[in-house]
Amino acid sequence: MEFKDTTAEEINVLLEESWKAFQVYRKLSLKQRAEFMRTIAIEMEALGDGLLRITGEETQLPEARLRNERTRTIFQLNSYAAACERGEWLEARIDTAVPDRNPPRPDMRKMLVPLGPVVVFGAANFPYAYSTAGGDTACAFAAGCPVIVKAHPGHAGTSEMVAGAVSRAAEKCGLPSAVFIHIHGASFEVGKALVEHPRVKAVGFTGSFQGGKQLFDWANQRKEPIPVFAEMSSINPVFLFPEKMNTSAVEAATQYAGSISLGVGQFCTNPGLIIGIDNEDLQLFIDTLSAEIVKLSPGNMLNPGIFKNYVEKRANALAQEGVEMVAVSPIDPELNQGTPTIATTSGQVFIHNPILHREVFGPYSLVIRCKDMAEMLEVTTHLEGQLTATLMANDNEIRDHVDLVEAIRDICGRYIMNGVPTGVEVCLSMQHGGPYPATTDSRFTSVGADGIKRFARPVAFQNWSNELLPEELKKENPLGIWRTVNDEKSKRES
Amino acid sequence: MEFKDTTAEEINVLLEESWKAFQVYRKLSLKQRAEFMRTIAIEMEALGDGLLRITGEETQLPEARLRNERTRTIFQLNSYAAACERGEWLEARIDTAVPDRNPPRPDMRKMLVPLGPVVVFGAANFPYAYSTAGGDTACAFAAGCPVIVKAHPGHAGTSEMVAGAVSRAAEKCGLPSAVFIHIHGASFEVGKALVEHPRVKAVGFTGSFQGGKQLFDWANQRKEPIPVFAEMSSINPVFLFPEKMNTSAVEAATQYAGSISLGVGQFCTNPGLIIGIDNEDLQLFIDTLSAEIVKLSPGNMLNPGIFKNYVEKRANALAQEGVEMVAVSPIDPELNQGTPTIATTSGQVFIHNPILHREVFGPYSLVIRCKDMAEMLEVTTHLEGQLTATLMANDNEIRDHVDLVEAIRDICGRYIMNGVPTGVEVCLSMQHGGPYPATTDSRFTSVGADGIKRFARPVAFQNWSNELLPEELKKENPLGIWRTVNDEKSKRES
Repeated sequence: MEFKDTTAEEINVLLEESWKAFQVYRKLSLKQRAEFMRTIAIEMEALGDGLLRITGEETQLPEARLRNERTRTIFQLNSYAAACERGEWLEARIDTAVPDRNPPRPDMRKMLVPLGPVVVFGAANFPYAYSTAGGDTACAFAAGCPVIVKAHPGHAGTSEMVAGAVSRAAEKCGLPSAVFIHIHGASFEVGKALVEHPRVKAVGFTGSFQGGKQLFDWANQRKEPIPVFAEMSSINPVFLFPEKMNTSAVEAATQYAGSISLGVGQFCTNPGLIIGIDNEDLQLFIDTLSAEIVKLSPGNMLNPGIFKNYVEKRANALAQEGVEMVAVSPIDPELNQGTPTIATTSGQVFIHNPILHREVFGPYSLVIRCKDMAEMLEVTTHLEGQLTATLMANDNEIRDHVDLVEAIRDICGRYIMNGVPTGVEVCLSMQHGGPYPATTDSRFTSVGADGIKRFARPVAFQNWSNELLPEELKKENPLGIWRTVNDEKSKRES
Repeated sequence: MEFKDTTAEEINVLLEESWKAFQVYRKLSLKQRAEFMRTIAIEMEALGDGLLRITGEETQLPEARLRNERTRTIFQLNSYAAACERGEWLEARIDTAVPDRNPPRPDMRKMLVPLGPVVVFGAANFPYAYSTAGGDTACAFAAGCPVIVKAHPGHAGTSEMVAGAVSRAAEKCGLPSAVFIHIHGASFEVGKALVEHPRVKAVGFTGSFQGGKQLFDWANQRKEPIPVFAEMSSINPVFLFPEKMNTSAVEAATQYAGSISLGVGQFCTNPGLIIGIDNEDLQLFIDTLSAEIVKLSPGNMLNPGIFKNYVEKRANALAQEGVEMVAVSPIDPELNQGTPTIATTSGQVFIHNPILHREVFGPYSLVIRCKDMAEMLEVTTHLEGQLTATLMANDNEIRDHVDLVEAIRDICGRYIMNGVPTGVEVCLSMQHGGPYPATTDSRFTSVGADGIKRFARPVAFQNWSNELLPEELKKENPLGIWRTVNDEKSKRES
């Protein structure tokens, strides 16, 4: 499908409409916002198999995966709707007046309010869950912000269909249509115009480092800088501790063969780096992993751009001195197919070659053979920020290597013990965000209802009469939400 | 007192020590961190009147004000210590495992962890409360971060003394001395070297727009950008609604005469802009305010730089076409004294002259005479972000002017009804932060224990055994803190 880029003039008009819609949408109760989100979920479900068909054509993703992802997207909408209503994200705090103090202490009540129109950039690798009606959009709606989605050109037809579902939901809920605006743009000028527009107050992005960094820079160079949450780049290191490997090398290798190749390696949490101690157990791990990898066929990648990148970056990584390919799918790839590949190198080669630290987006992993635990620590301190880090270890090894364990924690947002990083649970305790360059701000998450807080800011109401306060802050607590009252958690009136 | 600038080589050495101290300090329990903060408070108190004397010489601030500010600083340390122990700021979230789900849901537990060494820039106008052992330092210590303070050159001797108190507290608590590092630097190179140093993970600043913006840009241009919370510039508009003025013009004017001149106008929350409807009541307000202002004497300003800025910016504001001076202290100022001044202009003149939108740091306020409520709204939409906005209004006027009331809320962090913006309560519900350029990130505050969250980020622990989890996340909840367990607030075991 072909769609024309939205022009700068059109963007101007649309963003004024978005601002007007903000004035209406922000006044909706939490319950009404949640109802809107649930209606989007229903409308998205109603798109049925027709949606799956188009997305399959656009992304080469298999039907089962797309069905799962749609289910996840609907779950996100419903679960963030429930979180929106529960109101914990509002961080309501109340300190009641002390009129007889000198000077008198005024009544003070604080809660989060929406930032304003949020621009969401659809992700190539998640056409539903991190695109048009995905996590960022759901969080922004929960926060009370209108959304402007720039469709990913790789699945613009899918985006168009999902956008239709969102717009129908807005209509059914009696909302101004501009609460959701859908824009096409293959050129970078469209993204630039959106991020630089004064009516835009925040940005959500999932994609490449290059793309995310560019948005971050544009946003910071505005007259009024705005927050960008960009989830960009992560190689998700896995640390194989020697005692654990001594008993579980085969089991771990089998588990990782699945995680590495899942979705042709096109998940943000794909384990691209495996760090072990160079011994027989690690060799057994590598041999077992290799045996699994050579059983795999090359898989269709999302789009020609991602395929081209994979081919180039994989070739470049393999061409580095001291890097050896140890396993590759024996089947010749067709056009746009990614070939599962495992390479190895030494700790010192890795440490001294930054090219090897960079993401190779696709089914490629590098195993590092460290001399000893000291070198494993040295490798760790040379790694950049990551979405996840995983320890394959026994409990006593964790206790014995505190410095290493802390150093690993320093570089990640999600810290996994004896598991795989693929599979991102949608729940409040999830952290999908990490130190730069994994994301632009490690203090926020793009998965789980805490993601709502990216798009809201606190306002303190000082000395307001009870009748004029927002429902969330009124004395009688009509919404029955948790609030912190004079430093104590409470649902009571106050 | 004269202090030599710390050199770049010295900064390198110190920051490596800070990083090492971080490895120790982060492992302290919440209780131990709180104990350290309370010990700082005791040591600061023990500096006695000698501290007040030096600060008085360095800043020209009167003794009563300095006594108050020291009390406030000690209160901050103790109250953030209590908040640190209470642990609400950790945002502990737990989602328990569901092993029989397909796929099984892993145990997931999330809490905030410290970012790492934090650089704090002392503020000219708060030698205690927003300087060496002030709010930013207290928040960073509560979060588990070591602190590097760059002394404000305007009160470097004060800073040196307070730094001594912090260092003694560290020693008494058995902490590595580098948990707190004190640096002098009159040149901007020192600040640049600090913000650009890879070991630094966050920055706190209170001061001018120019200074804060520069730090923000340096931080964003790093290879690894880091968060900067800079509190920079605010003219704290006050909106005089006509019905309220019809009954309370004299009372409001008297109240504001005090607020405008408090501390020679050198508070971040000084009301620099008063917006009313041009009628007899506003004239009565202006006349009463003027009568109070002309009773005042010029007051000593903090330092020659701030004095020079005040003289220039005040003169420039008064020289603008359509601006009329209506009240000025009749006494000739001595060197470094700021003269209380009130000027007026029309709504249209204000809207079309951005020079009038800028802060004149000192005892200067501009009253805008709007034609009508529509023009008051127009003025509002031309204002930049502010720390505070104040409505002097009756309840029914708030109900009748929803668009205006919302537009005002959009530009501020603290929203005051019938009061004055000066006087910033230290409590959890305080918001001291606002849309740019009031601060660099409106989602955070520098007053109140929520300020701790500027210096911490979430980490999710997936599938960790209970014994290896941090105390805060263990099943039995040994610290007895509030946690969100399977979406419900609880202090229970889980």
